[in-house]
Amino acid sequence: MKEKSIGIVKTEYFTFAGPPHELKLECGEKLGPITVAYETYGELNANKSNAILVLHALSGDAHAAGLHQADDKYPGWWDTIIGPGKAFDTDKYFVICSNILGGCKGTTGPSSINPKTNKPYALEFPIISIQDIVNCQRELVDHLGIDKLLSVAGGSMGGMQALFWLAKYPERLRSAIPIATALKHSSQQIAFDEVGRQAIMADANWKEGNYYGATPPAKGLAVARMIGHITYMSDQSMEDKFGREKKKEVRPFKFTADFEVEGYLKYRGDLFVKRFDANSYLYITKAMDNFNLLEGKTIQTLFKGIKAKLLVIAFKSDWLYPAYQSKEIVRASKLSGLEATYCEVDSTYGHDAFLLETKEETHLIKNFLKKVYGDIEKNGA
Amino acid sequence: MKEKSIGIVKTEYFTFAGPPHELKLECGEKLGPITVAYETYGELNANKSNAILVLHALSGDAHAAGLHQADDKYPGWWDTIIGPGKAFDTDKYFVICSNILGGCKGTTGPSSINPKTNKPYALEFPIISIQDIVNCQRELVDHLGIDKLLSVAGGSMGGMQALFWLAKYPERLRSAIPIATALKHSSQQIAFDEVGRQAIMADANWKEGNYYGATPPAKGLAVARMIGHITYMSDQSMEDKFGREKKKEVRPFKFTADFEVEGYLKYRGDLFVKRFDANSYLYITKAMDNFNLLEGKTIQTLFKGIKAKLLVIAFKSDWLYPAYQSKEIVRASKLSGLEATYCEVDSTYGHDAFLLETKEETHLIKNFLKKVYGDIEKNGA
Repeated sequence: MKEKSIGIVKTEYFTFAGPPHELKLECGEKLGPITVAYETYGELNANKSNAILVLHALSGDAHAAGLHQADDKYPGWWDTIIGPGKAFDTDKYFVICSNILGGCKGTTGPSSINPKTNKPYALEFPIISIQDIVNCQRELVDHLGIDKLLSVAGGSMGGMQALFWLAKYPERLRSAIPIATALKHSSQQIAFDEVGRQAIMADANWKEGNYYGATPPAKGLAVARMIGHITYMSDQSMEDKFGREKKKEVRPFKFTADFEVEGYLKYRGDLFVKRFDANSYLYITKAMDNFNLLEGKTIQTLFKGIKAKLLVIAFKSDWLYPAYQSKEIVRASKLSGLEATYCEVDSTYGHDAFLLETKEETHLIKNFLKKVYGDIEKNGA
Repeated sequence: MKEKSIGIVKTEYFTFAGPPHELKLECGEKLGPITVAYETYGELNANKSNAILVLHALSGDAHAAGLHQADDKYPGWWDTIIGPGKAFDTDKYFVICSNILGGCKGTTGPSSINPKTNKPYALEFPIISIQDIVNCQRELVDHLGIDKLLSVAGGSMGGMQALFWLAKYPERLRSAIPIATALKHSSQQIAFDEVGRQAIMADANWKEGNYYGATPPAKGLAVARMIGHITYMSDQSMEDKFGREKKKEVRPFKFTADFEVEGYLKYRGDLFVKRFDANSYLYITKAMDNFNLLEGKTIQTLFKGIKAKLLVIAFKSDWLYPAYQSKEIVRASKLSGLEATYCEVDSTYGHDAFLLETKEETHLIKNFLKKVYGDIEKNGA
């Protein structure tokens, strides 16, 4: 059975915080104007109670589902679970996805033009946080005229945004679905991000971030992406996919990739360079590393008084965002009286499972949303 | 109780395979002359039955124990378990450790002078394998007049060498102690090594390996080492050591290390550059990745007919060389009738445990060697 797709979709743009109304960032600096690239799928209902905000991870963008053109090779990044009849059922719900602040896919980021200098921001771009990213999404939701979201959902860094929405703007949502994520980055998670950043900054073409219009730090960014890829897969999923298979082609050079896994990583690294900005990689990973929802809070009070419902999903072989981090979210919920459902999906795909284990994810999300949406229809918005 | 050290030791050198007797390597190329840097601790007994060959890991060297000078800041890399009264008791045993072929600590490697060109080999150095590394050690053991080693022992890549000795030259040893190692590198292990190599080769100063006498690819090598360090620690040991502690100092630059863990990795990476050659890193990691003791063998026949005794040690939190790989060694032993003892040490130190969990390691190794050595004294050499 071939699943239906939402079909052809279009990225739209919304600009706010034009002078003199700049957005005050968590770091204290001000930024504006800010453009947000976003897409929507499905129809917003009359009482605006069916809107779901989908939140992307480190390298994602606003294009979560459907195709931009009929002959696109790949659909949006979460097309498997967003569409007619799918987990985020566009026949029932109005799904929104926007590119995050600091990104490089249409939303203002370090590669955008700084109106004060008429040159790309580069490292003049201020340090951004998950709070700043969410605040931009809130501006978009306001702009779309939605008072209360049915849900906020995302995996990995998308899950951090969902958790931030839940903890800081609980009055703006009815539920949250953080997947394969954490209340704060661990030392190991920070370490992996830092090595990626060091790889970028070690590239002679990085030039303290001032490479726009010149050669980008492609090798450094490719190395960062390769590190990422290893952490997104599991020991077993790599073994299943590559084992010790050697590449067939001739090897003219001693340190050419001999093994399939080496060739794959190099290929994925090089591919990434074509679609992603190295400075965005620096800013976004830093936002993830600085994320700590427990800062100044205790696990007992984090979600106190919040009425929203919570679905937490983790994956057994995910060692980058291990299940214990998801269980900590559940623990915080239970301790503060927030209704939470937890499921640890039995998968060998590692962290990537949040994009790949769509069958089980679909059941979990579909049933959860049905209940949350059913409650509104029963009790009124 | 301060443990005794072996005291002042000296690195010695042994040269073989001088022209026209070059060493034939596994890749088919010939190499010579080859110099091996080595150290010995303790005294070889009259019937030469008390010699133990200790084998180092990726970044190790011949200096396994003692001090080179009285005011050395650190002793040799395995000083905690080599010395008077220690696991490898130098009051009883004669311990040998040599720098591996391809290394940069006195043994011939890519930074050595190629007698054919009078310039450093750089990438003219042939691809080497664990077999070639072990063959050089065998030359050294022959040179020292030792017919049969009491034991061969090492962790990580040192363990691969121990396994190779056991499988290919069983008549030359009475026992082997492979620690935190594997019969072959997994896809994930290859992947981590490959990212390290890519980081080195991405450095503009690498210049296809021809950087000798010029600026070395220090940034790339530091990144490779940082990746290594993360894999040597465990999620928990990083959390225990760093947590989310932020560095105290002022930060003049946006992407300076904010967290302790970042500063530590950068520091260790930079430190490594001073003592290690980037090309050696490429050659040695490739030797590890190509290692596959099961190639052309089955797990049932791998150790068939071998009389030596085996002690296999793994560490619970080691996710780089997970315990299942050590269990595979034990399984191969049991299936082929080789006497094997296995212990999974309960440690949170990750792969580094083989250098740090010295208390438990000492008990295991001491008792094991006592039995093997006792058997000789009872039954004669």
